[in-house]
Amino acid sequence: MTRLHKIFGFTVVAILVSGRLLASPDTAKPKPPIMAEVLSNSTPADWRPLDPENTLYLEFASGRVVIELAPAFAPRHVANVKALARERYYDGLAIVRVQDNYVAQWADPNAEKPELARKIQHARATLAAEFDRAFDPNLPFTPLPDKDVYAPEVGFSGGFPVARDRHSGKMWLVHCYGMVGAGRDNAPDSGGGTELYVVIGHAPRHLDRNVTLLGRVVQGMELLSALPRGTGALGFYEKPEQRLPIKSIRVAADVPEAERSDLEIMRTDTTAFKELIEARRNRREPWFQVPAGHIEIGNVPLPVRPRNIGASKHER
Amino acid sequence: MTRLHKIFGFTVVAILVSGRLLASPDTAKPKPPIMAEVLSNSTPADWRPLDPENTLYLEFASGRVVIELAPAFAPRHVANVKALARERYYDGLAIVRVQDNYVAQWADPNAEKPELARKIQHARATLAAEFDRAFDPNLPFTPLPDKDVYAPEVGFSGGFPVARDRHSGKMWLVHCYGMVGAGRDNAPDSGGGTELYVVIGHAPRHLDRNVTLLGRVVQGMELLSALPRGTGALGFYEKPEQRLPIKSIRVAADVPEAERSDLEIMRTDTTAFKELIEARRNRREPWFQVPAGHIEIGNVPLPVRPRNIGASKHER
Repeated sequence: MTRLHKIFGFTVVAILVSGRLLASPDTAKPKPPIMAEVLSNSTPADWRPLDPENTLYLEFASGRVVIELAPAFAPRHVANVKALARERYYDGLAIVRVQDNYVAQWADPNAEKPELARKIQHARATLAAEFDRAFDPNLPFTPLPDKDVYAPEVGFSGGFPVARDRHSGKMWLVHCYGMVGAGRDNAPDSGGGTELYVVIGHAPRHLDRNVTLLGRVVQGMELLSALPRGTGALGFYEKPEQRLPIKSIRVAADVPEAERSDLEIMRTDTTAFKELIEARRNRREPWFQVPAGHIEIGNVPLPVRPRNIGASKHER
Repeated sequence: MTRLHKIFGFTVVAILVSGRLLASPDTAKPKPPIMAEVLSNSTPADWRPLDPENTLYLEFASGRVVIELAPAFAPRHVANVKALARERYYDGLAIVRVQDNYVAQWADPNAEKPELARKIQHARATLAAEFDRAFDPNLPFTPLPDKDVYAPEVGFSGGFPVARDRHSGKMWLVHCYGMVGAGRDNAPDSGGGTELYVVIGHAPRHLDRNVTLLGRVVQGMELLSALPRGTGALGFYEKPEQRLPIKSIRVAADVPEAERSDLEIMRTDTTAFKELIEARRNRREPWFQVPAGHIEIGNVPLPVRPRNIGASKHER
């Protein structure tokens, strides 16, 4: 490894086309796989395509952000965001706030000016809070082996990072990097999806159960995380020209198939995913000296890859 | 609060000039202060100026990044980085890598080309690893009340986030957002400070004890975190013109006083800081519905403010 490429860990979210083989079979006891091996050894059944009805495309001039929605956890907010997208509510709105180590947020910059504010036609302006949901043991749940600082149990459910509390009988999405939520005022039921934010820094877990999370960015995160930070209080942009315009937000199902982002996401209910958690919990790549022996939910990758590359690999 | 300003939490690192007063004295039991109150009620003794001998200025055309160095934890790396700065090693180098939700890294882009590589004059090219240090009970340490996922104890020491393990007799800096470390190859002693990185995403705690951390960005973080992400593997920039040039890295003590960034940082060994931890552990601002009751080290703010504003406030 050259000096220029002084790397220190492989935080790979998108699979590289070249994989690595498992340790040679003459090793007495197979070494646990590293993540690259888990990914290259995975089968098509370890991956799932995005559901076009629960996928949003946030389109900028600079490119597309793909968001997977979480109807199991915020059914009414998900339905409302889709309705807002379908009535073109978001088209021409803008990124209004980017606060370092916190969030990027978009909204109608004219929301406070009744004569200029975007009108809502059929969707809802506000909704009752969906900060958590009833504990359902039938929902898939792959627990993490280590205790979490904030919640009695954490793990993954249907591709989303989730916390559970059997004592209170609640489950909720957690504010990992890339999670998308509905901004609100102080009143708990004052949100609804007209303002959305995404986490662009260290997971602000104190927001869990205080605001409705409704999805996760699965591609295009850099189009949000690399935005200039706003200079106003809380990272709001002070000048209109600083706000990045949104071309549109569309439900993927409404986009012609040829224009969709054909992605697949690693399932979180498989042996392969449990191996991936372990591979990141104890890093065995040559660079590492001390495997951590623990992993926190914010540090578990959720691999995404283009769907045709995966299929062609396994057809060979 | 207007709809445009749908905010959801006050992650304030830099103090706003206007503070808030404590609850009125006729309340039977004083409410615990929120962070804004802790800050506005703090006294000059709760803050400390940066030590110019242990402060670096990383200068870009776009502005200055201020880094506080941690000689208590990485004395030889800190000395070497200062020596490299003083022999102008870094001047004209560049940001070579920006990987989303991970790190920004700078280095000599020509490090692999002996005829073009920057020569080191008196400083060291590599150093023995300083991944951790001996547990010293005499070093200041303000523990966090909650158990950490990765380490037996976590807390703050002299302004830095730290972990401790009495059993192994070790202490180490932890990879919170903004922490700065020395890139290395696979060999543990192959780093030394010629390549430096900063954490720009969710704290990669699995790197703790695997690489030498040596400081923390205290101002100007957005100049690094908002950089375009590299499109090469691991976020390396593929084209030379994409790399952001570094004008210089200087030790603050070598900069004329009038040109220094006159900052102060909240001390981490005071009652005020313990109150701040508690204020963030249980958020009581009106927006919050459910105080978390826990806090993880990555979510504890380390307030920084301009020094003259603080002084003038308390002289009134």
